[in-house]
Amino acid sequence: MSEAVEGREALALLEHARDVVGPELRASVETLPGPLRRVAMYHFGWEHADGSPADGATGKAVRPALVLAAARAFGGDPGRAVRAAVAVELVHNFTLLHDDVIDDDTTRRHRPTAWTVFGVPDAIIAGDALFALALRVLAEDRHPASGPAIERLTACVVELCAGQQADCAFEERAPHDVSLDECLTMAIAKTGALLGCSCALGALYAGATPERTSALDAFGREAGLAFQLIDDLIGIWGDPGRTGKPAGADLAARKKSLPVVAALGSGTPAGEELAALYGAPMSPADILRAAEAVERAGGRDWAQHQAAERMGVAVQELSRAVPDLAAAGDLLALAEFVTRRTR
Amino acid sequence: MSEAVEGREALALLEHARDVVGPELRASVETLPGPLRRVAMYHFGWEHADGSPADGATGKAVRPALVLAAARAFGGDPGRAVRAAVAVELVHNFTLLHDDVIDDDTTRRHRPTAWTVFGVPDAIIAGDALFALALRVLAEDRHPASGPAIERLTACVVELCAGQQADCAFEERAPHDVSLDECLTMAIAKTGALLGCSCALGALYAGATPERTSALDAFGREAGLAFQLIDDLIGIWGDPGRTGKPAGADLAARKKSLPVVAALGSGTPAGEELAALYGAPMSPADILRAAEAVERAGGRDWAQHQAAERMGVAVQELSRAVPDLAAAGDLLALAEFVTRRTR
Repeated sequence: MSEAVEGREALALLEHARDVVGPELRASVETLPGPLRRVAMYHFGWEHADGSPADGATGKAVRPALVLAAARAFGGDPGRAVRAAVAVELVHNFTLLHDDVIDDDTTRRHRPTAWTVFGVPDAIIAGDALFALALRVLAEDRHPASGPAIERLTACVVELCAGQQADCAFEERAPHDVSLDECLTMAIAKTGALLGCSCALGALYAGATPERTSALDAFGREAGLAFQLIDDLIGIWGDPGRTGKPAGADLAARKKSLPVVAALGSGTPAGEELAALYGAPMSPADILRAAEAVERAGGRDWAQHQAAERMGVAVQELSRAVPDLAAAGDLLALAEFVTRRTR
Repeated sequence: MSEAVEGREALALLEHARDVVGPELRASVETLPGPLRRVAMYHFGWEHADGSPADGATGKAVRPALVLAAARAFGGDPGRAVRAAVAVELVHNFTLLHDDVIDDDTTRRHRPTAWTVFGVPDAIIAGDALFALALRVLAEDRHPASGPAIERLTACVVELCAGQQADCAFEERAPHDVSLDECLTMAIAKTGALLGCSCALGALYAGATPERTSALDAFGREAGLAFQLIDDLIGIWGDPGRTGKPAGADLAARKKSLPVVAALGSGTPAGEELAALYGAPMSPADILRAAEAVERAGGRDWAQHQAAERMGVAVQELSRAVPDLAAAGDLLALAEFVTRRTR
């Protein structure tokens, strides 16, 4: 399998991951008891709300693809890492179920979120069950890396929780009150940690040394932060043709995204102007002014440079972990894919 | 340690478990990142809402005591099973945090529930973090039983989720629509599974065979169901002096508890009368009539007999698991303690 995959581009790697991991993922979810299974099957896009089969508007499978690519990069058999790939995807989806409840989000992957269909209690419980299932899949795996993988994944979930908690708390605080450092830590925890952990699990399953495993974890984290910075830029200036996200969406919600927090902390008049605008709900004209203020305060440049810098660090960590650049190619392709959208 | 504990009664076993497990439990919780730690410290009763130290109205530690007693019963060193005891108590408290959100409960251990103090998002996230921590504590344990313990505990959490989901779903259904079988399955999942798992983990940590481990799991499950039946009787006829629970509380909430479901399915005129009363909110006089109807329909007798029968099965399973009755004494004392309250 390794030969057939090498050299393909990121989209092919993702499709391959969905093909290889999808059936095992679905088989795991199908072991859940009745009503929990139904909530989970709906959430994954495999069933409609009434339980009839659906096409499966499942996620892109970035995390499973990272697990498999990391295993390949260390000369491991990615086929033996499929359970690890299933586990990270289950964890990712457990957090989505809970985050949608917590953030009161009503749409996910162009469909009504699970809690809007089945109620908050069932969405919380189904999330808990997916998390338990993730660990169960790893624990039942007879692979020698199973134990260390569980250690890493549970530590990662604690960090994910801290990130989600910080994100909620920031929304409650005054615009000037959130520091850029806090914001970066939150973004690494909420977005980088599971991408890094996915890479680390693939490495562990291929028998990589602790040092290389940690370097690959750092690669995933840094790439994750670069992704978040670019996502935040899209949330302000948009890329509606490709993402369906309207320009200004994050500003309208007065989100304390990274470019905004950088602008607020810039000590510039434009930063003050932005803080004033963020003090109350904004009209469409205000939103345009806020976007301009972020730019004048240097928030846009900062985020773009920061994203490039983080990708640079990611590539350094990758070359520390996998010195053979040919073997690292798939991981690099995936990292570039997730951060490519505005480039 | 084993000699000093043998022969003491259940209260001493529980106190001993709190002494031995409490510091490790607290040390684990203190590893959580800031705001999550604060929610958890409050939930466990170690801190007030403002973060100042509190007495610690922590739970009775039934589950940790079962882990230690099970390890002792198989000749193991209970000191080596402390992490397993910490893990089951963390899982128990993760479910309490989520259940209080789901059931909209405002009081727990005579204090406002965490979600009423910190908000629903923080309570959900803190619950997730405690669950992750539970598995992390086990995964980081170098004991050879750590892997099998994780398998059992994650399978148990899936069952707990199914039980909690069923419990919520029953409340939405018409009185006649819930069968006694469904209700018993729900009670075993929601109450029995974690008690059984606690026993099984102690057995695994003492190197018990799979057969004996399973028998001890069954012991805990059956004792747990007996406990639930007795708790349901208290929820109708009360034992206010000892529990603080007013008589009729479960009837006032029109809960589909086991004696009620037995009465509703009895095919008796009293069962019909109860169904009619359950069709609408009840006055205090109605609640008294409902309690009498449950009794006339045979629900009270059924529950009492069923509880005794389940305890009988529990004792049989215990003697299959631990033929030496002296070694099984502590487990029996704990099982009798949790089901003793009305006797």
